[in-house]
Amino acid sequence: MLEKFFSPRSVAIVGASREQGKVGHEIVKNLLLGGFEGQIFPINPKATTILGKKVYAKITDIPAEEVDLAIIVIPAQQVKDALIQCAQKGIKSAIVISAGFKESGKEGAQRERELLQTAQEYGIRILGPNCLGLINTSANLNASFSTEMPPKGNIAFFSQSGALGTAILDWAVGQKIGFSKFISLGNKADLAESSIMEALCQDHDSRVILGYLEGIEKGQEFLHKARQVSKVKPIIITKSGSTSAGTRAASSHTGSLTGSDVAFEAAFKQTGVIRARTIEELFNYALAFAYQPLPQGPNLAIITNAGGPGILAADAAEKNNLNLLFLSKETTDKLAALLPPAASVYNPVDILGDAKADRYQKTLEVVLEDPKVHGVLVILTPQAMTEIPQTAEVIGEMSMSTEKPILASFMGEYAVREGIERLAKYKIPNYSYPEHAIESFHTMWKYRRWQEQPPLTYVSLDADRERVRQIIEQVRKEGHLEIGDLKAREILAAYRFEVPFSRVAEDSSMAVALAEEIGYPVVMKIVSPDVLHKSDVGGVKVGLKTPEEVHAAFHEIMAKVRKFMPQALIQGVSIQKMYDGKREVILGMARDPQFGPLIMFGLGGIYVEVLKDVSFRIAPICREEAQAMITEIKSYPMLKGVRGQKPVDMNAIVDALLRLSQLAVDFPEILEADINPLIMKESGQGAVAVDARFTISPN
Amino acid sequence: MLEKFFSPRSVAIVGASREQGKVGHEIVKNLLLGGFEGQIFPINPKATTILGKKVYAKITDIPAEEVDLAIIVIPAQQVKDALIQCAQKGIKSAIVISAGFKESGKEGAQRERELLQTAQEYGIRILGPNCLGLINTSANLNASFSTEMPPKGNIAFFSQSGALGTAILDWAVGQKIGFSKFISLGNKADLAESSIMEALCQDHDSRVILGYLEGIEKGQEFLHKARQVSKVKPIIITKSGSTSAGTRAASSHTGSLTGSDVAFEAAFKQTGVIRARTIEELFNYALAFAYQPLPQGPNLAIITNAGGPGILAADAAEKNNLNLLFLSKETTDKLAALLPPAASVYNPVDILGDAKADRYQKTLEVVLEDPKVHGVLVILTPQAMTEIPQTAEVIGEMSMSTEKPILASFMGEYAVREGIERLAKYKIPNYSYPEHAIESFHTMWKYRRWQEQPPLTYVSLDADRERVRQIIEQVRKEGHLEIGDLKAREILAAYRFEVPFSRVAEDSSMAVALAEEIGYPVVMKIVSPDVLHKSDVGGVKVGLKTPEEVHAAFHEIMAKVRKFMPQALIQGVSIQKMYDGKREVILGMARDPQFGPLIMFGLGGIYVEVLKDVSFRIAPICREEAQAMITEIKSYPMLKGVRGQKPVDMNAIVDALLRLSQLAVDFPEILEADINPLIMKESGQGAVAVDARFTISPN
Repeated sequence: MLEKFFSPRSVAIVGASREQGKVGHEIVKNLLLGGFEGQIFPINPKATTILGKKVYAKITDIPAEEVDLAIIVIPAQQVKDALIQCAQKGIKSAIVISAGFKESGKEGAQRERELLQTAQEYGIRILGPNCLGLINTSANLNASFSTEMPPKGNIAFFSQSGALGTAILDWAVGQKIGFSKFISLGNKADLAESSIMEALCQDHDSRVILGYLEGIEKGQEFLHKARQVSKVKPIIITKSGSTSAGTRAASSHTGSLTGSDVAFEAAFKQTGVIRARTIEELFNYALAFAYQPLPQGPNLAIITNAGGPGILAADAAEKNNLNLLFLSKETTDKLAALLPPAASVYNPVDILGDAKADRYQKTLEVVLEDPKVHGVLVILTPQAMTEIPQTAEVIGEMSMSTEKPILASFMGEYAVREGIERLAKYKIPNYSYPEHAIESFHTMWKYRRWQEQPPLTYVSLDADRERVRQIIEQVRKEGHLEIGDLKAREILAAYRFEVPFSRVAEDSSMAVALAEEIGYPVVMKIVSPDVLHKSDVGGVKVGLKTPEEVHAAFHEIMAKVRKFMPQALIQGVSIQKMYDGKREVILGMARDPQFGPLIMFGLGGIYVEVLKDVSFRIAPICREEAQAMITEIKSYPMLKGVRGQKPVDMNAIVDALLRLSQLAVDFPEILEADINPLIMKESGQGAVAVDARFTISPN
Repeated sequence: MLEKFFSPRSVAIVGASREQGKVGHEIVKNLLLGGFEGQIFPINPKATTILGKKVYAKITDIPAEEVDLAIIVIPAQQVKDALIQCAQKGIKSAIVISAGFKESGKEGAQRERELLQTAQEYGIRILGPNCLGLINTSANLNASFSTEMPPKGNIAFFSQSGALGTAILDWAVGQKIGFSKFISLGNKADLAESSIMEALCQDHDSRVILGYLEGIEKGQEFLHKARQVSKVKPIIITKSGSTSAGTRAASSHTGSLTGSDVAFEAAFKQTGVIRARTIEELFNYALAFAYQPLPQGPNLAIITNAGGPGILAADAAEKNNLNLLFLSKETTDKLAALLPPAASVYNPVDILGDAKADRYQKTLEVVLEDPKVHGVLVILTPQAMTEIPQTAEVIGEMSMSTEKPILASFMGEYAVREGIERLAKYKIPNYSYPEHAIESFHTMWKYRRWQEQPPLTYVSLDADRERVRQIIEQVRKEGHLEIGDLKAREILAAYRFEVPFSRVAEDSSMAVALAEEIGYPVVMKIVSPDVLHKSDVGGVKVGLKTPEEVHAAFHEIMAKVRKFMPQALIQGVSIQKMYDGKREVILGMARDPQFGPLIMFGLGGIYVEVLKDVSFRIAPICREEAQAMITEIKSYPMLKGVRGQKPVDMNAIVDALLRLSQLAVDFPEILEADINPLIMKESGQGAVAVDARFTISPN
């Protein structure tokens, strides 16, 4: 995939320039300086040679039979024509560096749409526009206007921000970190993160895929592709713009709790993509994955020549839920025999401030031999006796003969510099702060678990879709876009939710008869397509326990609603079984513009409204994801039961979440949904969806 | 303070050695290499010269009249004698480098106690034992065995871990960051963090105080001193061992929620000490405080030549609750006139990828002129046109003529290196990641607010202390260490809490009469010094609404308790007004081994037990601290009132917290306390302490 982008045999630069400093010049220069061995065809109607290369006036003038890749750096208005010329020459891959498209306003956006249309018409794939180009170190290809070409290596990186790309390349050059590919995505008119990830998945030079994104083009495609690719190679992404989503007008609980970041967070969880919260984390994780094998388990042994950093590391381990107490008796015995009496033979193993390289070596040997150890972090502080480069060599040598990951934290800067450089030669990642090493190890372990997890199955549930379709049609016909109460429960019933038995009474004696049939206590509510906020007009009465109360309530409701809303069409009063709402949950759905239906779960009332203790996933969800939604909320212990309470029926929640997911997938016209409350019964007894509300689109 | 430690005119090295690599040798060498200009007297009975310095056999042999400082590096067993010799020579300050004290076990701990005793007897102050020594760059004094001497500067640093100290000095040397003092605390037998902070407060060379601590010696002294010092200079501390507190046996809610870190967190909040969660944060904050003036407000303007990093910075600003929307219309107009049309003139100001130094300069000028701007972060990514060193110069020049702090984030490594070095010359801190710059600015602003806050007043509250003393005595006499129910409420009443009216009935007709007097509903509980868990033996009945129910309940309680605990002495059944517990809070107290009484606050029930939504402060607390405890919990909105509820009486909670704090301070023999529940009434109507439990010490 994208072979002609990454490893072209020949490249045309449309808009090549003689003038130094111009992008059209820099690109030709970078291609030459990078050592690209294919053919280079600068295109410029006014020049004859550029940097010693013969220049052609038009793309179609190029004498070669086939040209693999075009790099276009001419003004935005002319790009479309250039693309048509590319097609004439049979070029199917183009990098559009030129700016002046979507990023520059309305007119540019229109230009970008036309560009894409032309490209699709002629079967040309486009990277960009408004991008920095790409680099493929293994092909010595610097098809970008970044002058810096990182060393060869196995990290692939795509970036929605070109400038951030240059900063990261600069870091790679400074730190001598090897990269396989760098791809500047630009405006993502055609090629976007999903295709790039797919291509990098197949690329043998890339072991880990990094990305910086500000948005995602096609959310569902991303979910699909990322889930596949992340099973093969780790994908680590920093997504910015994570907080400023702000609040948008929303009619449901779910809607009001949904910031754009919530969808991303869910998407990353559901696809095994590793989220780096900052660029620093992106670097830290990248090094660990690029340099070291994945651990077979969570047990990290820490070796240190100083107590303080050992404590800092132990703190970080606890924060990452890593247990440090696993060294076997045999190991601690061996360590005790080996180390001075003042040393600590428990994890973190403190080999004391006077430890020289040989003590590091012997300790590392013993620790690596312990089958319970899945990885090692070696901490070094530069003390009077410390043999820094020698210790680095010793660690490096040991890493050659083990399958377990080894990370290092040589702390300081000046004295440890040479040691860190030697570590890098052995591909031992060094972290200035032990906390970062711990986080990186933990991330590797989490990723390994994801990789090993059997594939999830997404099943389609049985439901009476036709009935839901009818209800939506009917509501629309009545001129409404909100569905509540009876009709909402009918939708739920069609999706096999248990809903309370409920009937409409037309007069008070019918109300009493129905209440007797249903059993007390009951809830009574006005039934009218015109009354949306029933409580506000006195249209609801709860906890009615006797025929007299039901009788009186009927008349009171009718009188109040007639008074407040004399125009309202009244169809009667519903009588409904009242459930004990000791443990209620809320299920919801809102649509994210990038990812689509977002399913929400939380405990009812205060827990959602005040504490915002909710979890999210993007539909469709599978059983495991529904389960994770439940255990993820902080108030989960309340569902398990506190103070002697029995657990609620967790399976019933899982089922309800799956059904809501199915409904959201089946009916894109349902924009938002709240099932509130879903009243929980004890284990095995199910749950009742007492009330619900849906918002639908006008068409 | 500690003048003779920091700026001695003469130093004796007890245990100076001719042998290279030995600590006693390295210290003499470091003193000489550091350029110390005072007198140096190596002490060694077997040598005549060391590194060209004349050696004396005994301290008392030193010919000089006065010796200011002794550095002791002899075996632990001999240190006490050396100290006595110091006294004979009139030396009042000693650094004990020698190990083999508290850190090495029981025997060493005894040795350390004796050492301290000797020192106190002779009026000698000690730094150490088991420390690395100290460095005072302004006196060219390297009285440590760290070979690295950092450049001169205004950062003071004390460390409980010597090795971490060496790592930090190494960082300082590598990054060319200036330090004023480095003090290795070692075992803190005598001089500990509080005295050091006090001394550094008076030190004109130190502008910011950094510390690394694993524990605190005298918690209340620390609170007192840190509160004073932090008003003068920022104190930034990394405290390790923050998570591994684990659980300890505790009889109260408060006790079980108290990890050791909770006390530190409270102590830092109450003293204005800035807590750095990691060494990385410690560095980041140190640079900002050491190099730049404090901001006058929270408004940070961000200037960037790239969108991506601008978004990352904006994300970080939002996470730190910094509002970025404050640039005046005048400023944005000026920027619009100045910048290319594609630039963004709103904060973050995006001056585009082709920005050269002059565009940075003009933008910075306009932004700094805006009176609403309190500080600026300049972000630079190395792009094709970027003038990196020149831009650094421009920023540096601008910083000379403004009182506003300027921070920089030159991203990358190789290409930006020279720029960062130039920034450092102008004392502009550079952060590789804009997030760190934002956090540092926010920390500066928070510190400034702390500094400006008027001093807090701690008042002593009126209470019937004598009554409490009597109750405690009586309970102890009865052989109990737990106080509940009636007696607990009496203690509360003595501290002016409102407690429910409650009387003891000896028979059922008296019970009915009391209930009639109190008003229904009532709660009835067995009264017996032998029954601690009343509910477990059927000794509690709630919600009794009629004389018949009270009558029946009396007999039922008596029968059940007699059956389950036939030996129990029964004094009767208490009749108590039952309150509507719609909004309950819990107040608690537990004693932290380092800081003393820790006051807890949280909402009742689930909020404390499941969600652990609580806040802590160390007693004594003042009104402002009590208020902060209330607003800090996540469920605070519930106290303010949700769904149309009125707010509870916040003042009543504040008062209750102050009274509990007073009680904890007055009675150290009260080990733990739970006031649970404190039932809240509406604003102005107070609160009722319905139940409480205290644990007291045996003597």
